Amino acid sequence: MSSIYGENLKVSIFGQSHGPAIGMTLDGIPAGLPVDEEALQAFLARRAPGGSNLSTPRKEADRVEFLSGIVDGRTCGAPIAAMIANTNTRSGDYANLKDCPRPGHADYTAQVKYRGYQDSAGGGHFSGRLTAPLCIAGGLCKQWLAEKCVDVRAHIYALAGIHDRPFDPISPEMVPEGFPVLSEAAWASMQEHILAARSAGDSVGGVIECAVTGLPAGLGAPMFGGMESRLASILYAIPAVKGLEFGDGFALASMTGSRANDPFAMANGRVVTTTNHAGGILGGITDGMPLLFRLCVKPTPSIALPQQTVSLKTGEALTLNVKGRHDPCIVPRAVPVVEAAAALAVFDAFLD
Amino acid sequence: MSSIYGENLKVSIFGQSHGPAIGMTLDGIPAGLPVDEEALQAFLARRAPGGSNLSTPRKEADRVEFLSGIVDGRTCGAPIAAMIANTNTRSGDYANLKDCPRPGHADYTAQVKYRGYQDSAGGGHFSGRLTAPLCIAGGLCKQWLAEKCVDVRAHIYALAGIHDRPFDPISPEMVPEGFPVLSEAAWASMQEHILAARSAGDSVGGVIECAVTGLPAGLGAPMFGGMESRLASILYAIPAVKGLEFGDGFALASMTGSRANDPFAMANGRVVTTTNHAGGILGGITDGMPLLFRLCVKPTPSIALPQQTVSLKTGEALTLNVKGRHDPCIVPRAVPVVEAAAALAVFDAFLD
Amino acid sequence: MSSIYGENLKVSIFGQSHGPAIGMTLDGIPAGLPVDEEALQAFLARRAPGGSNLSTPRKEADRVEFLSGIVDGRTCGAPIAAMIANTNTRSGDYANLKDCPRPGHADYTAQVKYRGYQDSAGGGHFSGRLTAPLCIAGGLCKQWLAEKCVDVRAHIYALAGIHDRPFDPISPEMVPEGFPVLSEAAWASMQEHILAARSAGDSVGGVIECAVTGLPAGLGAPMFGGMESRLASILYAIPAVKGLEFGDGFALASMTGSRANDPFAMANGRVVTTTNHAGGILGGITDGMPLLFRLCVKPTPSIALPQQTVSLKTGEALTLNVKGRHDPCIVPRAVPVVEAAAALAVFDAFLD
Amino acid sequence: MSSIYGENLKVSIFGQSHGPAIGMTLDGIPAGLPVDEEALQAFLARRAPGGSNLSTPRKEADRVEFLSGIVDGRTCGAPIAAMIANTNTRSGDYANLKDCPRPGHADYTAQVKYRGYQDSAGGGHFSGRLTAPLCIAGGLCKQWLAEKCVDVRAHIYALAGIHDRPFDPISPEMVPEGFPVLSEAAWASMQEHILAARSAGDSVGGVIECAVTGLPAGLGAPMFGGMESRLASILYAIPAVKGLEFGDGFALASMTGSRANDPFAMANGRVVTTTNHAGGILGGITDGMPLLFRLCVKPTPSIALPQQTVSLKTGEALTLNVKGRHDPCIVPRAVPVVEAAAALAVFDAFLD
Repeated sequence: MSSIYGENLKVSIFGQSHGPAIGMTLDGIPAGLPVDEEALQAFLARRAPGGSNLSTPRKEADRVEFLSGIVDGRTCGAPIAAMIANTNTRSGDYANLKDCPRPGHADYTAQVKYRGYQDSAGGGHFSGRLTAPLCIAGGLCKQWLAEKCVDVRAHIYALAGIHDRPFDPISPEMVPEGFPVLSEAAWASMQEHILAARSAGDSVGGVIECAVTGLPAGLGAPMFGGMESRLASILYAIPAVKGLEFGDGFALASMTGSRANDPFAMANGRVVTTTNHAGGILGGITDGMPLLFRLCVKPTPSIALPQQTVSLKTGEALTLNVKGRHDPCIVPRAVPVVEAAAALAVFDAFLD
Repeated sequence: MSSIYGENLKVSIFGQSHGPAIGMTLDGIPAGLPVDEEALQAFLARRAPGGSNLSTPRKEADRVEFLSGIVDGRTCGAPIAAMIANTNTRSGDYANLKDCPRPGHADYTAQVKYRGYQDSAGGGHFSGRLTAPLCIAGGLCKQWLAEKCVDVRAHIYALAGIHDRPFDPISPEMVPEGFPVLSEAAWASMQEHILAARSAGDSVGGVIECAVTGLPAGLGAPMFGGMESRLASILYAIPAVKGLEFGDGFALASMTGSRANDPFAMANGRVVTTTNHAGGILGGITDGMPLLFRLCVKPTPSIALPQQTVSLKTGEALTLNVKGRHDPCIVPRAVPVVEAAAALAVFDAFLD
Repeated sequence: MSSIYGENLKVSIFGQSHGPAIGMTLDGIPAGLPVDEEALQAFLARRAPGGSNLSTPRKEADRVEFLSGIVDGRTCGAPIAAMIANTNTRSGDYANLKDCPRPGHADYTAQVKYRGYQDSAGGGHFSGRLTAPLCIAGGLCKQWLAEKCVDVRAHIYALAGIHDRPFDPISPEMVPEGFPVLSEAAWASMQEHILAARSAGDSVGGVIECAVTGLPAGLGAPMFGGMESRLASILYAIPAVKGLEFGDGFALASMTGSRANDPFAMANGRVVTTTNHAGGILGGITDGMPLLFRLCVKPTPSIALPQQTVSLKTGEALTLNVKGRHDPCIVPRAVPVVEAAAALAVFDAFLD
Repeated sequence: MSSIYGENLKVSIFGQSHGPAIGMTLDGIPAGLPVDEEALQAFLARRAPGGSNLSTPRKEADRVEFLSGIVDGRTCGAPIAAMIANTNTRSGDYANLKDCPRPGHADYTAQVKYRGYQDSAGGGHFSGRLTAPLCIAGGLCKQWLAEKCVDVRAHIYALAGIHDRPFDPISPEMVPEGFPVLSEAAWASMQEHILAARSAGDSVGGVIECAVTGLPAGLGAPMFGGMESRLASILYAIPAVKGLEFGDGFALASMTGSRANDPFAMANGRVVTTTNHAGGILGGITDGMPLLFRLCVKPTPSIALPQQTVSLKTGEALTLNVKGRHDPCIVPRAVPVVEAAAALAVFDAFLD
């Protein structure tokens, strides 16, 4: 199913950007796991819009309402359902998108697939807003992983060409509270580029790096059950993600085997590798080293600059000037989403 | 399941490198589709070992034997099952791998996951040899896609730093018969590097680029059903794949939205985009332009040079000298495997 | 997943009897299908409690609230989510059930499976109340089947030993509006037995017969995809169902083949069978005759009479006197639930 | 998928009655489980044809050949694949079935679904012969359940109206080695009826009862994951099964709740029920009592007596005289198949 993910747990995402509500159901979760709703709300706040002048002025409290599956602060074994009411919707902005598709958006492909019946307001089910329920499910998994001393952390690796300090592949450092980067200096410069893009009516993209630490060796499976496959299928479900690499990724293509192979050694009585070019995954299965990946986020397709499109009715060429409230850069808001998606895939693997 | 893929069709891969046979079952295929067994055998020959002095001397006829699902040259609606008998096995080479894991291989992670019960001969179920049954399933899908005028073609984009001519994103050219590249000059230079790696007892990796042409707009779905997710989950099942990007991929991270968005236009009465930075996919759904992706293949982990590992029994450090017959570079043989995996994902999407 | 059903569509049921809400998500539905919310509400009213003195006095409006998937009265291709708020809950009644399991209920098995973390109020996720969201999903499918001239109808075949007139297997008659039976006389007598059971502090069960008419030949598949398997797996998900038979069912066991086989003939230019012992299914695939099945519903386990149980804490024998509001007979309310489940399975098969 | 079953394990059945081979793949099985191939072969012998004058004269050794997944007599964690070569095929018998469908068979429905491309020889993928690979998968699960002290046993409950002694629902007795019944006297009389049916050119059906003993409480799940649903979806995949009931089944419909509820008590320090009307399942979850069910098998549709059918080409009425080698009664051969299917469903539940 297009909106259901997972091999052991099943997360199902529902909602449209401007519908009554967005939400998720999470099935297959063991009973008795603690749920910290406040911590979850704080996690969602990291992706919520209107947080700063860097993002869309659309304000959404994104208050999570649990409908089922949790009793006295613990999972009860029944499916968990949660919703977020959509409070601030302006469908008027989107009236003509069915006829004049926005470049870089799903307007045209949705029109073809759903034959005009799709909810085009705000991108409907394709909206980045649907990453909020993903953060509910993933935020819960992140809490449960923390109980196993597994930590999922991400940061902006690069934005508009500005690079943050990369993670140390053997012992990734913590990301400072309240920042989407390791280096505050890099963040300052990234912010300048975002604001410059906004004033130019344009947008910028970036690269996000994620590390999962504390994993035991042995998670995952060969073939289609490999950790790369399981992570990729959920990470590519995040709108605007167009590339993904594990460990040294594409750089491995120009290395020799003698350089790319991670030698085994013993440390504190356990097997480790002295380098981590493989990103903690061998044969699809975790090897006990930090699981590392990077993904690229294309620049927000919604820009104020005029763009060329066509009328799907008449076929005539049109110049499109997009109205509405948009992010000049979604990369900072995407950081917790990447953590959420990774947490879902990893927790699912724990349930194997 | 770790070895089952597909939303509409289900391909299940079985076998170990040195077991009695490897094979696949393919369920959910409509009845009446023609099967050209000779063409399939020729397709498999592209990945078969022993083809040249560039690859392992292990010789395998890789003769496909259909067990079910095909009657009088057409699918009958029942699951298709096919096997390839393993004829040339030398398990002796692998006796001690359970204790001394090879760097870059799944020996260690398999040992942890399967607690010593895994078939370690030749990598067992983790062996690149399991891409042969993937080529049976994918080769069939490639034939059925051809009936819909959909063509799946791949070439070596880069090998050991040598680049082939890239595909034109609007109209990718054909790959010359019998070559894994567009530029024969590039191929000559790539071969030199492979032979140099072999004589150095080392190995090299590369990047493969794939194009799927003739696709209609509207294939795929939002979220987890997106074409990127569906392609990624099968492409990452190919051993040694560590990176994947669609369209301009990671290069999009440093573009502006005004540059990255593909403008819509009309051509011959149909909607097209005048550029193809998105690689033919918007919102997870095909837009009718060529579907384009690149993936990186790490250098073959099996090398003749001595490597550091540990004894899982005693924990003592060991220097490993791998015996056995291996490829200094699997990239050329991986080209048809990438086509097969892509064909499976795309044909599965056609069955939505 | 335990609460997800379907091969093409996916219905996911959530909620607990006394939690904030119950509901469902329905994924994989084509875009553009009309939704008649009033007709759906009327369908749910057939199973709603408090309808008469025959059922529990617990009153629930069971007002369906759609959260997503429907725009301007039609499906938009995105997952459909709907909820029913629980308004009338009395958890106090259930405080001690974790220690003293009710005979015939899931109290004990849930306690073992969920280790005491289950929501025991009102049976939690095991409650018959969860058939309301099943009726939302199935009620929608029933509407969409009606568009294909496929009708799903059920009646009480037997209750406390009183039999209704059975369906004609070749042309099942309509069930009179507002009645769960074909024969009003039988209904009168059934009601007497229900009221007698209530005054005795006891309960009664029954048999429900369902017919699906207007089906084309060719729906379903061999093996696990057979219509019997697909119907059984959802029908047995209805609480209290303990038996299911298709066509002549168990009576076939004592027939000869010459009597049980349905001869083929032509009628109005199409292939028919002159009898319908097979209940419209041959080899798991519909043959174009009415699809017929009967299922048995055990008597409501909640009774006022004292019953023997044990303390799970101390192991001592206890006499249980169940408080709370219960149905002396759930069979009449189960009739629309059976129709809903059948509609889901059949509509799912249409999407093959 | 139509020929894939299981939530945790995945069994995939392939083959046609008169194709090169039939077989199965079994994915998701833990590594290290022992496999007794001789015991498995003996189990298959119980369903093999040609065993006596009671069944079809078609002789098949049904020699199981493992292709993968087993190393040194234990599972290695990779998918298990096994095949049985078809040795004794006579396709000539079936040439005209595509035009003249046999009553009670899938000939007509397969023709409609597969548009004439199905393999009609011997029923193709619909043949009862496909229960052999089911017995491979289920026979393995039966062995692994035995290691957990879980025993799966079935017997003929009734055949052509003759009843065997039923299982004691609290402590089902063993079935005597080499017999499909508990009472040898009943068996003698059943055999007479089978032979009488054969000489009359007719066939008979029956009822099979199955008990699974030694189960812990807590297996299964609510809703669609209930043991009844999971068992039903695989049991109804056995050709000719038309009815299924758990515990007292349909008899519960005319009981009162006070009689149908199984009182809880303590015995040897564990919770038991003093009766077992529920067949060991409450709320879809095992309660630790014997799991009991009965299913009915319709009489073999293949009979020698002339039958009415139609030509699908011309629509003219025809009298069919079926040639070929058939069973006057498949019930005895179906007994191990029922055990196999039950073992698969139960072992799958153990893997939850």
